Amino acid sequence: MINIDFDKMGGLAPAIIQDAQTNEVLMLGFMNRKAWETTLETGKATFYSRTRNKLWIKGETSGNVQLVKEIRIDCDNDTILLKIEQVGGAACHTGHKSCFFRKLENGELKTIGTRIFDPKEVYKK
Amino acid sequence: MINIDFDKMGGLAPAIIQDAQTNEVLMLGFMNRKAWETTLETGKATFYSRTRNKLWIKGETSGNVQLVKEIRIDCDNDTILLKIEQVGGAACHTGHKSCFFRKLENGELKTIGTRIFDPKEVYKK
Repeated sequence: MINIDFDKMGGLAPAIIQDAQTNEVLMLGFMNRKAWETTLETGKATFYSRTRNKLWIKGETSGNVQLVKEIRIDCDNDTILLKIEQVGGAACHTGHKSCFFRKLENGELKTIGTRIFDPKEVYKK
Repeated sequence: MINIDFDKMGGLAPAIIQDAQTNEVLMLGFMNRKAWETTLETGKATFYSRTRNKLWIKGETSGNVQLVKEIRIDCDNDTILLKIEQVGGAACHTGHKSCFFRKLENGELKTIGTRIFDPKEVYKK
């Protein structure tokens, strides 16, 4: 079996989320053991929210869940890489496909991604 | 200017390293402010080693430096993504191209990458 090293970061391991089709990196989240086990059990990327201090099933509010297609573990067993299918097309809460939609150019951040959805529509009450 | 949030992780920010040509994820490292500034100044990926507690210019021992081609920052300003050219072809200290050379299949880790170099040859004294 796999034994992820959650001790190195006080119970958390970083998880890189990559589009299974295009290999674009969509986001990085953190998992605790429960989030990791839930991801394995459900096939949906699940994280531990450091700001809300609770388990966070990605897409539970927006419907944009991440269906796990492949799981890779790094050489030190302390970092997870998930290749996923992004339901809804956008991983970022800003409505962009990837959270990495800004590129550093001449010392300034330049937006290069286009918005897939309007967050005001998706996260309204 | 960009202001990376190093506070969230006690002075560190995760940095995802991706092959600029193929978009393959090669590794994940951590940067402190000094590592980030050194990366910007030198154009070579520089990390903070959590195990050795010091600045770590990737490739300083093996010669396999990472030449930075593009820098992306995530929506929360707390994660860095570098698209790089991997000198020597392998990013992993095991000699594999990527640190994520193992894939989870039926509960077991299966090696899918081939070795580019023999670590015993590269890291010998």
